[in-house]
Amino acid sequence: MRDFLPAEKARRERLLGVIRDVYRRHGFDEIETPVAEDSERLHAGLGGDNEKLAFGILKRGLTRDDLQAAQEPLDLADLGLRFDLTVPLARFYASHRADLPTVFRSIQIAPVWRAERPQKGRYRQFVQCDIDVLGEPGPRAEAELLVASLDALDALGLEGGVIRLNDRRLLTGMLATLGFAPSEYDGALITIDKLDKIAQDGVLAELRERGFTPAAVDALEAFFRRPQTMEFLPFGEAAIRRALPENPDPEALVGLVAIGEAVMAARGGAPGEALLQFDPFLVRGMGYYTGPIFELAHPSVPYSLGGGGRYDGMIGRFLGTDVPATGFSLGFERLVDLVDLPDEAGTDAVALLHDPEVPLAALLALKTALVADGSRVRLVARPKNVKPTLDALAADGFTRFAFVDAATTAASLDLRPLTETARS
Amino acid sequence: MRDFLPAEKARRERLLGVIRDVYRRHGFDEIETPVAEDSERLHAGLGGDNEKLAFGILKRGLTRDDLQAAQEPLDLADLGLRFDLTVPLARFYASHRADLPTVFRSIQIAPVWRAERPQKGRYRQFVQCDIDVLGEPGPRAEAELLVASLDALDALGLEGGVIRLNDRRLLTGMLATLGFAPSEYDGALITIDKLDKIAQDGVLAELRERGFTPAAVDALEAFFRRPQTMEFLPFGEAAIRRALPENPDPEALVGLVAIGEAVMAARGGAPGEALLQFDPFLVRGMGYYTGPIFELAHPSVPYSLGGGGRYDGMIGRFLGTDVPATGFSLGFERLVDLVDLPDEAGTDAVALLHDPEVPLAALLALKTALVADGSRVRLVARPKNVKPTLDALAADGFTRFAFVDAATTAASLDLRPLTETARS
Repeated sequence: MRDFLPAEKARRERLLGVIRDVYRRHGFDEIETPVAEDSERLHAGLGGDNEKLAFGILKRGLTRDDLQAAQEPLDLADLGLRFDLTVPLARFYASHRADLPTVFRSIQIAPVWRAERPQKGRYRQFVQCDIDVLGEPGPRAEAELLVASLDALDALGLEGGVIRLNDRRLLTGMLATLGFAPSEYDGALITIDKLDKIAQDGVLAELRERGFTPAAVDALEAFFRRPQTMEFLPFGEAAIRRALPENPDPEALVGLVAIGEAVMAARGGAPGEALLQFDPFLVRGMGYYTGPIFELAHPSVPYSLGGGGRYDGMIGRFLGTDVPATGFSLGFERLVDLVDLPDEAGTDAVALLHDPEVPLAALLALKTALVADGSRVRLVARPKNVKPTLDALAADGFTRFAFVDAATTAASLDLRPLTETARS
Repeated sequence: MRDFLPAEKARRERLLGVIRDVYRRHGFDEIETPVAEDSERLHAGLGGDNEKLAFGILKRGLTRDDLQAAQEPLDLADLGLRFDLTVPLARFYASHRADLPTVFRSIQIAPVWRAERPQKGRYRQFVQCDIDVLGEPGPRAEAELLVASLDALDALGLEGGVIRLNDRRLLTGMLATLGFAPSEYDGALITIDKLDKIAQDGVLAELRERGFTPAAVDALEAFFRRPQTMEFLPFGEAAIRRALPENPDPEALVGLVAIGEAVMAARGGAPGEALLQFDPFLVRGMGYYTGPIFELAHPSVPYSLGGGGRYDGMIGRFLGTDVPATGFSLGFERLVDLVDLPDEAGTDAVALLHDPEVPLAALLALKTALVADGSRVRLVARPKNVKPTLDALAADGFTRFAFVDAATTAASLDLRPLTETARS
């Protein structure tokens, strides 16, 4: 877990402010849930591998006997830190449904915790930016998620985002057509999900090694090796059909086409090639996805900047009745490494370098008058050699400075521009 | 722990935004620390009674044998959720001192956790708004804290805030003069801290019952009962001297007077009576205070809205060398119950009530064009009876609406004002 010093904290908050603003304008509403959820709920099978990474919170008032009687650590935890924002959202919606609009569009921008082994670029506390649409079964929900997220990327200065799309029903339909047994689907998808890392031959080898129906793996190999035309088809029904075996799930197909058309119409410009890509082997790790799934890519980086999908069954786990739901999560920690937005303009930042003999009351009155005029003001005891101090102030974003001695008044304050030239 | 629905979340964020902005302009810089700290550090004796309320986080990978071998619950926790923002700040400063200005003014706006018994108005997760000045030994630090906090209160619409001031050295000096033994100071202050609740007679009875030096308690009684002149003295040396036994600590006295003069000069207006009050029996609970202590009151409420004090010894516990430090914490959860700021002006919020047959692509294009023009836009399926829906939209802050059917284009969109009149 990390500390954030002022410059980094300000950088992060600027990005979050931009993302929040775009999502709000797209009609989403921010909510907040507590960092801890009931342990039982966190370990209900909805978090996949992340459940194992949940930090448990010790019950209060445990006795020595309680410790002795415990069979496993989880017996001693009644709460845990959330490992994602989806399980808390499902619980939130089940609790507050009566007070929410029929179609509820949520924003959650908040930290989550996973007890990962420390390694470069992986943190045990990190921020997720999720938007979700609850209560809308059709492609309108996905279209709103994707357009809003592409707009957020634009607003961060990352124009040219690309959406990779698939549907869980097309994936399982493909496996069925190739001859896999239904009991093999989940396992086979875990291996196919590694296509980016181990390539087609690696996937085939792993499937054979793990003992999947040999004829089905052969059929997958033939499908991988099929002759492909180089003719470009823009995103749409023809492109999707060509990328799949015969007879794809018609509802999934119609849904993806509708999502694509809506995203293209909303984003304007030429249809498809760069904006939308159908990826028949996009899996997304979580087992709870039931329909369209998607990832956000950008030409400047080889990894995805976010993703999500439809999870129509999850809220029913808490509420008893199913509620259609779909969500998108922006990879904030990746974005913050890529993007630097300029500091908000307009705030004049002034440093007052004061001599020791300036009376405190006069000094505070000078400072407060500048603050009241809208400036940001920092008091600094005047050092013998002012240059390093002025350089540091410029680096911290201060734009003007003045020396203050015992004779200085508001009228005589001599504010001078502070430039960063001295640093270079 | 609580969920926050959109309206409440927005209300809270508006208040936090105002507070953050005022503190930033007063030269403070926001930082962030992880929610969890090392268990050892949380239980190092710096958190007073709050240490007992810390939520412990289970070590990972514990075996059955580990559980059997544990003597007490804390043996199984290596981390805990922070119960305040002061212990994390001291750890932060000790870790990053080289990268921070000599005098570091921090803002921390973040949740803390205490395993209190659930009761009205007490939460297990709540937000604290702290500012601290590290590295400045003199009254300039306190003056900056107090002026910034009064300005924050003003900006929240609570003009007329009052600061109650005391100094830990004046408190112990008073106890010494009255005849308490040094070993009795901490215990006696715990009882004196209840003056607001149990009044003078209650304090005297409890001190006698708990067996404090009888002559000292008699002397305190005489001091309580001393004849008092009704003549008003504005805040300053004379007022402080009159409220205390003889020979107050001279350094503490000079410091308080300087703080008061600076706050009055910065805030302007007539001196003292309403703005500053010396309170010889103000204690503040935490044992780590070493100098000036203060509370923020407001005529509209009987409880304090914040408080703080100087804690020069604490950072030395982590760093090895003492660093002067003083801080102020605004009672955010109390403020949020008192204050309602209007929604930020300027964002036009539009609801599009669409018929089912409107093509999705056309609908998304209409929405996105409005978003691009700066509006906030929500899509709503048009119900048979629109009035309850329009009322709910107005209550959610939407200001305009339009009906959208299959023939609607951007040019023909008929936006109408949405008023809340129907609700009343």
